[in-house]
Amino acid sequence: MAVAITACSQTPAPSTNATLATAESKVAGVNSAPNIIFLIGDGTGFEFISAYRYAHSEIGQPLIETPFDDMLVGAATTYPDDDTWVTDSAASATALATGVKSYNGAIGVDSAQHPQQTLMEKARQHGWLTGAVSTSQVTHATPASFFTHHPSRSMYNAIADSFASTKFGAQDELWSFDVLLGGGMSYFKRDDKDWLPELRNQGMTIVDDYQALEATEQLPVLGLFAPVALPYAVDDQPRLAQLTRNALRLLTAKQDESGQPFALMIEGSKIDWCGHANDIACAVHEVGDFAAALQVAKDYQAQHPNTLIVVTADHSTGGLTLGQGGEYAWYSERVMAIENSLEVLVGGLLERSRDEWRDYLAPRLNLALSEQQWQQLLATEMSGSEDRKDHEKRIHQALVALISEVTRTGWTTSGHTAVDVPIMASGPYAEQLRGYKDNTDIAKVLLQIVR
Amino acid sequence: MAVAITACSQTPAPSTNATLATAESKVAGVNSAPNIIFLIGDGTGFEFISAYRYAHSEIGQPLIETPFDDMLVGAATTYPDDDTWVTDSAASATALATGVKSYNGAIGVDSAQHPQQTLMEKARQHGWLTGAVSTSQVTHATPASFFTHHPSRSMYNAIADSFASTKFGAQDELWSFDVLLGGGMSYFKRDDKDWLPELRNQGMTIVDDYQALEATEQLPVLGLFAPVALPYAVDDQPRLAQLTRNALRLLTAKQDESGQPFALMIEGSKIDWCGHANDIACAVHEVGDFAAALQVAKDYQAQHPNTLIVVTADHSTGGLTLGQGGEYAWYSERVMAIENSLEVLVGGLLERSRDEWRDYLAPRLNLALSEQQWQQLLATEMSGSEDRKDHEKRIHQALVALISEVTRTGWTTSGHTAVDVPIMASGPYAEQLRGYKDNTDIAKVLLQIVR
Repeated sequence: MAVAITACSQTPAPSTNATLATAESKVAGVNSAPNIIFLIGDGTGFEFISAYRYAHSEIGQPLIETPFDDMLVGAATTYPDDDTWVTDSAASATALATGVKSYNGAIGVDSAQHPQQTLMEKARQHGWLTGAVSTSQVTHATPASFFTHHPSRSMYNAIADSFASTKFGAQDELWSFDVLLGGGMSYFKRDDKDWLPELRNQGMTIVDDYQALEATEQLPVLGLFAPVALPYAVDDQPRLAQLTRNALRLLTAKQDESGQPFALMIEGSKIDWCGHANDIACAVHEVGDFAAALQVAKDYQAQHPNTLIVVTADHSTGGLTLGQGGEYAWYSERVMAIENSLEVLVGGLLERSRDEWRDYLAPRLNLALSEQQWQQLLATEMSGSEDRKDHEKRIHQALVALISEVTRTGWTTSGHTAVDVPIMASGPYAEQLRGYKDNTDIAKVLLQIVR
Repeated sequence: MAVAITACSQTPAPSTNATLATAESKVAGVNSAPNIIFLIGDGTGFEFISAYRYAHSEIGQPLIETPFDDMLVGAATTYPDDDTWVTDSAASATALATGVKSYNGAIGVDSAQHPQQTLMEKARQHGWLTGAVSTSQVTHATPASFFTHHPSRSMYNAIADSFASTKFGAQDELWSFDVLLGGGMSYFKRDDKDWLPELRNQGMTIVDDYQALEATEQLPVLGLFAPVALPYAVDDQPRLAQLTRNALRLLTAKQDESGQPFALMIEGSKIDWCGHANDIACAVHEVGDFAAALQVAKDYQAQHPNTLIVVTADHSTGGLTLGQGGEYAWYSERVMAIENSLEVLVGGLLERSRDEWRDYLAPRLNLALSEQQWQQLLATEMSGSEDRKDHEKRIHQALVALISEVTRTGWTTSGHTAVDVPIMASGPYAEQLRGYKDNTDIAKVLLQIVR
């Protein structure tokens, strides 16, 4: 395994706002470039938007309005620079962050593992404020690719080290981010290294609960609200909108002082995770949380019109289809009846004896299952192994099969697919994202805005 | 079964061009409204466009350019006015033709089975030239919904009767179409009724081969090139581009005399049929034929800029995904190696003894199958029945399973799905189709152009 690359060879030497901002883009010390709010729905292909819309609508009634409706401008190809058409989140995030295609697994590096300048690094170079919000650990592929450079997405600790130690500014007084919110405390506070005291000493505010975040008044802020990823929205509370609102609040306060634009990346990380798990109830709630965050961004834009909002996905996940097995139906009300993620349900079943399963599941699935369906589920074959992981997998597969059949939701893979993904945009420069694009084109539009 | 409705209650009484054309839309006898070329890819969701693009590109090389690339403007919801989110082609074609949602199966009628004015009827009412091209029988749901009104899509004979007998104009001298090209001879020339002599006597040119079509100089023309649908592009020759070129040639010649705009609907009908059959090689070739027809339309538009081109799908079919079974790959070169549709391959196997299967299939599939894969295919279970239909189904399923595994193509249904479909547009009024729309919105934009 190659070592982590923590210096970015293509990023010019660090410097302060004043020395880097070009004359033509500044009016009386104010940079007139727009703020950039870049929302990435991980795994959120068109079918996830359709699923969200229908899940929250009622047949025979007008469809719900969604914050996506007036923003769709195009679609993007997502293929990596690798021996396949199907990208992973790392290659795609690298493409979206740097405008350069790379191999699956790459974090901010090209196919030769050379670091590529990211949107956030260019923003820093020009004195902008920067930030990211995610529902996964902040060290996960998407946020990592916007701020760090590593040959492999699995290097979570090294990525945390990069976030904690990469500095900009004449006196190295700036981290690569002003605000970084999500999960992942376990990568910053670990047995071999606890970054928290050091970061606090250097002036970073660190919070680990939402109340503390609400009370925070000053950047830079590192908010880590779970050891790894945040819980699923369907199991817990929606949280991406709240994190987004706080990130925007803090950036705006700082912007009022500095007059600099900001670039903020917001990831609906776990839509993808629901897709990998073939968990439709999980997915529609997770997209709902992402939509709520987009609405927060749009409300901000309404107050601050010099703001570009771009929404896209890195790829689609799971091979989701609304309709399955020949029936012309997708039972959205049945999807919405389910009250937990498969992760929670499978965990609950593993803790219980088989004769408790039905009582546990019935009020959480809320599906009118036939006696035969119950018996089939309760008879899930697990005798072949004593391994908990194996049992988990078998129960998971049985629940996916059942819920797919009852709701008529189709899935074809535990991985990703190569279908083109939506591009949505509003505000300055949105016109440049119209039509069929490649994912690298999106980054190129954003990179040229930073000045 | 209700009888066919051949009169359209919402269509004003027939009248000639001169009396109906409104003053403001005419300059010195020329109607300044744009020509409308409306291309419908039946079943052609985003994933079919992605499949077409990747199938014809090579990994590691720049992607092919497609005629879709500069035209994508939005996406449309497709749900019917029925107890489901999943539409059939009839309800969706009715929505696209009339702007009114209806039940699955409806041909140009609303949920109460009341006829609704179609784009082509409004065009006729305003003196426009009209036409349709399809690769299915012209009596199939999509073309039928643009010209006729029937409570059920299965009424092919009654639909043919409507095409043959519905007349417009002061002296009933005009059919509802000037040019109608596709398959479906068996519905116009049948045991209980042969429309051909009657139509010829009334001045209709009827052709049944492509050479005769090329030689035809005068409208109206009914071209029926197969008893039912045209053969698949993968098995035969691409034909939609040729039909489109001839339809445009004939309409243009007439337009040069009359100064009236035309409305032409072009359907890539059998993309949907490949989807129903879960036949990926069939699908990418059929989309290729549709793309070639679009290119013909774009070339026409380049010469005649007062032309609006709109491309959409009525729904997506089959639950196609590019990637399947956990592998991050879609083997496009394997898809392109396959030389026939499953329909032809299954037919070929049914005509042969099992010991001839391998020799028949190997040079048509061109896939590097393992010995185990061959043995599994050759052992396809068929002993349970003597029924040819049953054998056909079993062989078909075995081939779908094999090709899906080898190419990593996912399918979830033999029917349709509810995912939103692309809207592409260029030319006058294209701006009005931007963003997320409903399929009825597309019809509303087109209907208001007709004047």
